[in-house]
Amino acid sequence: MEPRIHVITLAVDDLERSLAFYRDGLGLESPGVIGTEHPGDDNNAAGAVVMFELDGGLVLALYPRTELAKDANVELVSASSGSFSIGHIVPEHDDVDALLGATAAAGASITEAPRERPWGIYSGYFRDPDGHLWEIIWSPTSDSD
Amino acid sequence: MEPRIHVITLAVDDLERSLAFYRDGLGLESPGVIGTEHPGDDNNAAGAVVMFELDGGLVLALYPRTELAKDANVELVSASSGSFSIGHIVPEHDDVDALLGATAAAGASITEAPRERPWGIYSGYFRDPDGHLWEIIWSPTSDSD
Repeated sequence: MEPRIHVITLAVDDLERSLAFYRDGLGLESPGVIGTEHPGDDNNAAGAVVMFELDGGLVLALYPRTELAKDANVELVSASSGSFSIGHIVPEHDDVDALLGATAAAGASITEAPRERPWGIYSGYFRDPDGHLWEIIWSPTSDSD
Repeated sequence: MEPRIHVITLAVDDLERSLAFYRDGLGLESPGVIGTEHPGDDNNAAGAVVMFELDGGLVLALYPRTELAKDANVELVSASSGSFSIGHIVPEHDDVDALLGATAAAGASITEAPRERPWGIYSGYFRDPDGHLWEIIWSPTSDSD
Protein backbone atom coordinates (compact mmCIF):
# COMPACT_ATOMS: atom_id res chain seq x y z
CA MET A 1 0.00 0.00 0.00
CA GLU A 2 1.25 3.47 -0.82
CA PRO A 3 1.91 5.42 2.40
CA ARG A 4 -0.93 7.84 1.93
CA ILE A 5 -4.37 8.58 3.35
CA HIS A 6 -6.67 10.55 1.08
CA VAL A 7 -9.87 10.88 3.09
CA ILE A 8 -11.00 10.81 6.70
CA THR A 9 -14.74 10.28 6.91
CA LEU A 10 -16.51 11.07 10.17
CA ALA A 11 -19.90 9.47 10.74
CA VAL A 12 -22.37 12.13 11.88
CA ASP A 13 -25.97 12.26 13.03
CA ASP A 14 -26.89 15.48 11.26
CA LEU A 15 -24.99 16.74 8.22
CA GLU A 16 -26.18 20.32 8.59
CA ARG A 17 -25.28 20.48 12.27
CA SER A 18 -21.80 19.13 11.63
CA LEU A 19 -21.32 21.37 8.59
CA ALA A 20 -22.18 24.35 10.76
CA PHE A 21 -19.73 23.25 13.44
CA TYR A 22 -16.77 22.75 11.11
CA ARG A 23 -17.48 25.51 8.58
CA ASP A 24 -19.06 28.28 10.61
CA GLY A 25 -17.61 27.37 13.99
CA LEU A 26 -14.08 26.26 13.10
CA GLY A 27 -13.66 28.13 9.85
CA LEU A 28 -12.99 25.26 7.44
CA GLU A 29 -14.12 25.94 3.88
CA SER A 30 -16.65 23.77 2.10
CA PRO A 31 -19.20 24.15 -0.70
CA GLY A 32 -21.70 22.53 1.69
CA VAL A 33 -23.67 19.36 1.22
CA ILE A 34 -23.00 17.73 -2.15
CA GLY A 35 -24.05 14.43 -3.73
CA THR A 36 -27.74 14.87 -3.04
CA GLU A 37 -28.48 13.65 -6.57
CA HIS A 38 -27.82 10.14 -5.24
CA PRO A 39 -30.78 9.34 -2.98
CA GLY A 40 -29.73 5.76 -2.32
CA ASP A 41 -31.85 2.63 -2.58
CA ASP A 42 -32.05 -0.87 -1.14
CA ASN A 43 -28.54 -1.66 -2.27
CA ASN A 44 -26.78 1.69 -2.19
CA ALA A 45 -26.14 4.29 0.43
CA ALA A 46 -27.25 7.84 -0.27
CA GLY A 47 -24.57 10.15 -1.61
CA ALA A 48 -25.13 13.33 0.37
CA VAL A 49 -21.83 14.29 1.98
CA VAL A 50 -19.83 17.29 3.15
CA MET A 51 -16.19 17.58 2.14
CA PHE A 52 -13.46 19.91 3.34
CA GLU A 53 -10.30 19.97 1.23
CA LEU A 54 -7.40 20.41 3.62
CA ASP A 55 -3.82 21.42 3.05
CA GLY A 56 -1.69 18.59 1.75
CA GLY A 57 -4.51 17.08 -0.30
CA LEU A 58 -6.33 15.35 2.54
CA VAL A 59 -10.13 15.49 2.53
CA LEU A 60 -12.15 15.60 5.74
CA ALA A 61 -15.60 14.22 4.94
CA LEU A 62 -18.80 14.23 7.00
CA TYR A 63 -21.22 11.46 6.14
CA PRO A 64 -24.40 10.28 7.86
CA ARG A 65 -23.84 7.43 10.29
CA THR A 66 -26.63 5.40 8.68
CA GLU A 67 -25.11 5.74 5.22
CA LEU A 68 -21.57 4.92 6.25
CA ALA A 69 -22.86 1.75 7.89
CA LYS A 70 -24.72 0.87 4.70
CA ASP A 71 -21.82 1.75 2.39
CA ALA A 72 -19.34 -0.26 4.44
CA ASN A 73 -21.82 -3.03 5.17
CA VAL A 74 -21.33 -2.86 8.92
CA GLU A 75 -23.75 -2.58 11.81
CA LEU A 76 -25.05 0.83 12.68
CA VAL A 77 -23.29 2.09 15.77
CA SER A 78 -23.93 4.77 18.31
CA ALA A 79 -21.98 7.99 18.44
CA SER A 80 -18.21 7.97 18.48
CA SER A 81 -16.17 7.83 21.59
CA GLY A 82 -12.52 7.16 22.13
CA SER A 83 -11.70 4.80 19.29
CA PHE A 84 -9.56 7.33 17.45
CA SER A 85 -8.47 10.93 17.55
CA ILE A 86 -7.43 13.57 15.05
CA GLY A 87 -4.37 15.62 15.91
CA HIS A 88 -4.04 19.25 14.91
CA ILE A 89 -0.78 21.10 15.57
CA VAL A 90 -0.77 24.84 16.20
CA PRO A 91 2.20 27.19 15.78
CA GLU A 92 2.36 28.74 19.26
CA HIS A 93 1.90 27.47 22.81
CA ASP A 94 -0.93 29.90 23.51
CA ASP A 95 -2.75 28.84 20.35
CA VAL A 96 -3.79 25.61 22.09
CA ASP A 97 -5.90 27.43 24.64
CA ALA A 98 -7.20 29.89 22.06
CA LEU A 99 -8.28 27.22 19.61
CA LEU A 100 -9.85 25.00 22.27
CA GLY A 101 -11.74 28.05 23.49
CA ALA A 102 -12.97 28.70 19.97
CA THR A 103 -14.12 25.10 19.56
CA ALA A 104 -16.02 25.29 22.84
CA ALA A 105 -17.68 28.49 21.65
CA ALA A 106 -18.66 26.61 18.49
CA GLY A 107 -20.32 23.88 20.53
CA ALA A 108 -17.51 21.41 21.17
CA SER A 109 -17.08 19.82 24.55
CA ILE A 110 -13.60 20.01 26.10
CA THR A 111 -12.71 16.63 27.59
CA GLU A 112 -9.21 17.50 28.72
CA ALA A 113 -7.98 21.02 29.35
CA PRO A 114 -4.59 21.87 27.88
CA ARG A 115 -1.57 20.79 29.85
CA GLU A 116 2.03 19.74 29.39
CA ARG A 117 2.45 16.05 28.57
CA PRO A 118 5.46 13.95 29.65
CA TRP A 119 6.67 13.67 26.03
CA GLY A 120 7.14 17.39 25.72
CA ILE A 121 4.00 18.62 24.03
CA TYR A 122 1.28 20.92 25.34
CA SER A 123 -2.18 19.72 24.36
CA GLY A 124 -5.86 19.42 25.13
CA TYR A 125 -8.79 17.53 23.65
CA PHE A 126 -12.26 18.36 22.46
CA ARG A 127 -15.16 16.29 21.14
CA ASP A 128 -17.10 17.46 18.10
CA PRO A 129 -20.94 17.33 18.14
CA ASP A 130 -20.82 13.60 17.32
CA GLY A 131 -18.23 12.77 19.93
CA HIS A 132 -15.23 12.55 17.61
CA LEU A 133 -12.04 13.41 19.47
CA TRP A 134 -9.58 16.07 18.36
CA GLU A 135 -6.30 16.81 20.11
CA ILE A 136 -4.94 20.35 19.73
CA ILE A 137 -1.18 20.22 20.08
CA TRP A 138 1.75 22.54 20.42
CA SER A 139 5.15 20.94 20.22
CA PRO A 140 8.48 22.71 20.66
CA THR A 141 9.96 20.43 18.01
CA SER A 142 7.24 20.68 15.38
CA ASP A 143 6.69 23.16 12.67
CA SER A 144 3.12 24.17 12.07
CA ASP A 145 3.16 23.58 8.34
CA MET B 1 -8.33 26.71 12.57
CA GLU B 2 -5.83 26.08 9.81
CA PRO B 3 -7.23 23.57 7.30
CA ARG B 4 -4.85 20.81 8.18
CA ILE B 5 -4.81 17.50 10.01
CA HIS B 6 -1.41 16.36 11.22
CA VAL B 7 -2.11 13.04 12.94
CA ILE B 8 -4.69 10.30 12.89
CA THR B 9 -4.44 8.17 16.00
CA LEU B 10 -6.10 4.77 16.03
CA ALA B 11 -6.86 3.21 19.40
CA VAL B 12 -5.62 -0.37 19.45
CA ASP B 13 -5.73 -3.30 21.83
CA ASP B 14 -2.23 -4.56 21.13
CA LEU B 15 0.50 -2.31 19.76
CA GLU B 16 2.64 -5.17 18.48
CA ARG B 17 -0.26 -6.84 16.70
CA SER B 18 -1.27 -3.61 14.99
CA LEU B 19 2.32 -2.75 14.14
CA ALA B 20 2.65 -6.14 12.47
CA PHE B 21 -0.56 -5.61 10.52
CA TYR B 22 0.35 -2.18 9.17
CA ARG B 23 4.10 -2.62 8.78
CA ASP B 24 4.56 -6.24 7.83
CA GLY B 25 1.12 -6.83 6.33
CA LEU B 26 0.44 -3.59 4.52
CA GLY B 27 4.00 -2.42 3.99
CA LEU B 28 3.95 0.92 5.79
CA GLU B 29 7.31 1.95 7.20
CA SER B 30 7.86 2.61 10.89
CA PRO B 31 10.71 2.46 13.37
CA GLY B 32 8.40 0.42 15.59
CA VAL B 33 7.21 1.17 19.09
CA ILE B 34 8.67 4.43 20.42
CA GLY B 35 8.06 6.47 23.55
CA THR B 36 8.55 3.59 25.96
CA GLU B 37 10.66 5.87 28.17
CA HIS B 38 7.35 7.36 29.36
CA PRO B 39 5.74 4.67 31.51
CA GLY B 40 2.82 6.81 32.61
CA ASP B 41 1.53 7.36 36.13
CA ASP B 42 -1.66 8.29 37.95
CA ASN B 43 -1.99 11.50 36.01
CA ASN B 44 -0.36 10.74 32.69
CA ALA B 45 -0.90 8.19 29.99
CA ALA B 46 2.02 6.03 28.96
CA GLY B 47 3.92 7.21 25.90
CA ALA B 48 4.47 4.01 23.94
CA VAL B 49 3.16 4.58 20.42
CA VAL B 50 3.72 3.51 16.82
CA MET B 51 3.95 6.17 14.13
CA PHE B 52 3.93 5.89 10.36
CA GLU B 53 4.96 9.02 8.47
CA LEU B 54 2.82 9.15 5.35
CA ASP B 55 3.16 11.15 2.17
CA GLY B 56 2.00 14.71 2.53
CA GLY B 57 3.20 14.99 6.12
CA LEU B 58 0.34 13.14 7.77
CA VAL B 59 1.19 10.76 10.62
CA LEU B 60 -0.81 7.59 11.23
CA ALA B 61 -0.36 6.70 14.90
CA LEU B 62 -1.30 3.54 16.79
CA TYR B 63 -1.86 4.04 20.50
CA PRO B 64 -3.27 1.72 23.16
CA ARG B 65 -6.98 2.18 23.73
CA THR B 66 -6.44 2.49 27.48
CA GLU B 67 -3.86 5.26 27.05
CA LEU B 68 -5.87 7.27 24.54
CA ALA B 69 -8.81 7.22 26.93
CA LYS B 70 -6.53 8.40 29.73
CA ASP B 71 -4.78 11.05 27.62
CA ALA B 72 -8.08 12.46 26.35
CA ASN B 73 -9.84 11.99 29.67
CA VAL B 74 -12.71 10.00 28.19
CA GLU B 75 -14.28 6.71 29.12
CA LEU B 76 -12.60 3.56 27.89
CA VAL B 77 -14.57 2.19 24.96
CA SER B 78 -14.75 -1.12 23.22
CA ALA B 79 -13.27 -1.76 19.80
CA SER B 80 -14.05 0.54 16.93
CA SER B 81 -16.94 0.03 14.59
CA GLY B 82 -18.48 2.33 12.06
CA SER B 83 -17.90 5.73 13.57
CA PHE B 84 -15.36 6.76 10.94
CA SER B 85 -13.45 5.44 7.98
CA ILE B 86 -10.13 6.13 6.32
CA GLY B 87 -10.14 6.40 2.54
CA HIS B 88 -7.21 5.24 0.44
CA ILE B 89 -7.23 5.86 -3.33
CA VAL B 90 -5.44 3.48 -5.68
CA PRO B 91 -4.25 4.28 -9.23
CA GLU B 92 -6.01 1.51 -11.17
CA HIS B 93 -9.42 -0.15 -11.03
CA ASP B 94 -7.90 -3.59 -10.47
CA ASP B 95 -5.77 -2.28 -7.60
CA VAL B 96 -8.86 -2.19 -5.37
CA ASP B 97 -9.30 -5.95 -5.51
CA ALA B 98 -5.57 -6.56 -5.26
CA LEU B 99 -5.11 -4.36 -2.21
CA LEU B 100 -8.18 -5.68 -0.42
CA GLY B 101 -6.89 -9.18 -1.09
CA ALA B 102 -3.56 -8.22 0.42
CA THR B 103 -5.21 -6.76 3.50
CA ALA B 104 -7.23 -9.94 3.97
CA ALA B 105 -4.04 -11.98 3.71
CA ALA B 106 -2.57 -9.71 6.39
CA GLY B 107 -5.47 -10.45 8.72
CA ALA B 108 -8.04 -7.80 7.83
CA SER B 109 -11.68 -8.66 7.51
CA ILE B 110 -13.44 -7.53 4.33
CA THR B 111 -16.83 -6.07 5.23
CA GLU B 112 -17.86 -5.04 1.73
CA ALA B 113 -16.42 -6.55 -1.44
CA PRO B 114 -15.44 -4.08 -4.14
CA ARG B 115 -18.21 -2.77 -6.36
CA GLU B 116 -19.22 0.23 -8.38
CA ARG B 117 -20.93 2.96 -6.33
CA PRO B 118 -23.64 5.28 -7.69
CA TRP B 119 -21.27 8.27 -7.50
CA GLY B 120 -18.85 6.75 -9.95
CA ILE B 121 -16.18 5.17 -7.80
CA TYR B 122 -15.24 1.51 -7.41
CA SER B 123 -14.54 0.62 -3.80
CA GLY B 124 -14.59 -1.93 -1.00
CA TYR B 125 -14.03 -1.85 2.74
CA PHE B 126 -11.92 -3.71 5.24
CA ARG B 127 -11.59 -3.61 9.02
CA ASP B 128 -8.18 -3.65 10.64
CA PRO B 129 -7.53 -5.93 13.65
CA ASP B 130 -9.21 -3.38 15.95
CA GLY B 131 -12.24 -2.89 13.75
CA HIS B 132 -11.18 0.42 12.20
CA LEU B 133 -12.72 0.81 8.75
CA TRP B 134 -10.71 1.55 5.61
CA GLU B 135 -12.26 2.12 2.19
CA ILE B 136 -10.06 1.29 -0.80
CA ILE B 137 -11.15 3.46 -3.70
CA TRP B 138 -10.57 3.79 -7.41
CA SER B 139 -12.07 6.85 -9.02
CA PRO B 140 -11.97 7.68 -12.73
CA THR B 141 -11.61 11.34 -11.81
CA SER B 142 -8.90 11.08 -9.16
CA ASP B 143 -5.21 10.95 -9.42
CA SER B 144 -3.41 8.61 -7.08
CA ASP B 145 -0.96 11.12 -5.82
